[in-house]
Amino acid sequence: MRGITKKSRGELIVLSGPSGVGKSTVIAELLSNRRDIHFSVSYTTRSPRVGEADGVNYNFVTREEFERMIANNELLEYAQYVDNYYGTSLKVIQEKLEQGVDVLLDIEVQGAATVREKCPEAVLIFIIPPSLEELSRRLYTRNTDAPEIIAQRLEKARSECKESLMYDYLVVNDTVMSAAQEIQAILEAECCRVHKRAHLVKRIVGE
Amino acid sequence: MRGITKKSRGELIVLSGPSGVGKSTVIAELLSNRRDIHFSVSYTTRSPRVGEADGVNYNFVTREEFERMIANNELLEYAQYVDNYYGTSLKVIQEKLEQGVDVLLDIEVQGAATVREKCPEAVLIFIIPPSLEELSRRLYTRNTDAPEIIAQRLEKARSECKESLMYDYLVVNDTVMSAAQEIQAILEAECCRVHKRAHLVKRIVGE
Repeated sequence: MRGITKKSRGELIVLSGPSGVGKSTVIAELLSNRRDIHFSVSYTTRSPRVGEADGVNYNFVTREEFERMIANNELLEYAQYVDNYYGTSLKVIQEKLEQGVDVLLDIEVQGAATVREKCPEAVLIFIIPPSLEELSRRLYTRNTDAPEIIAQRLEKARSECKESLMYDYLVVNDTVMSAAQEIQAILEAECCRVHKRAHLVKRIVGE
Repeated sequence: MRGITKKSRGELIVLSGPSGVGKSTVIAELLSNRRDIHFSVSYTTRSPRVGEADGVNYNFVTREEFERMIANNELLEYAQYVDNYYGTSLKVIQEKLEQGVDVLLDIEVQGAATVREKCPEAVLIFIIPPSLEELSRRLYTRNTDAPEIIAQRLEKARSECKESLMYDYLVVNDTVMSAAQEIQAILEAECCRVHKRAHLVKRIVGE
């Protein structure tokens, strides 16, 4: 940081994007350049898959534990997919933001809508593919899904992209580097927004 | 530019800041990194000072010519200071923006307010000094003004900084490099704003 405190509070950053768009890779690239960002690990009731670690990919909790968190209003947002809960803990996020630390959430469109409602000052970024053809090519190259699953994913991607218009920013993932660079520029610009620097003006005008 | 056209129209960028804040140096640094930006040269009826060139510092015109421009609605904004007119031609700006070229205006708070009104999509950036003390130091170091003139400039700077809250972004000029870098980030981020990329989503969802 430079001599004067330009920042009064951390940014809450929401990143979404359709399956196959390369979001995880973009996030990894972003976090390697911005080690000061806190990546919020979601809570889930589903079982860990091979290679997944508790506290890294997800915080794995029991259904009882998760429902207790719901009951205690401990979650910023949560959703149920295929009999499992997925959600974001409010407490850690609030602590980090108050410490001036930027917090990154990797959540779906539905969760992003909840964040928008509860935290209007959050910065919502949606990652789109250069085209649906390119997304299709990536899903085929990944070679993990059957053609009918890929077709479903593409249809879901189309409908998610429609929802992207409620976000603040659209980042095109044509290359991982350019997408990560655009997100970094967005975060830098957001720090300069006038209402986030009003305290600097007050100091100058002496009020 | 990359493979796909991400940009449909140029950005209109307004830069303001108090006298002595180092705005010209920041603009020079910015334009050296972003040679694609068109810097809009203002029109004025005042006489050129030693070292000033027509079409570079200002477009120098007669009072009759300027009043003809006013009468023909050829100016985006204009103002009168100490018996001289200063204004911005609308025509060149419109042409550039339509060609997808970003246009930079270096104008005062009053002109910026007019641009805000006429072009709500313009990006308004105000450059503030790290502190009033630092601005004072810079004005004294510049050694071009008598102490009472510097006192007047500082008082004017204070009142201009108050007006800065109507801008979109505040950039702190602690170093020329960091200020120019922040402006570049703002311009990059503005290109990613969702309403400026809605055409990309439309292409993907096929509407």
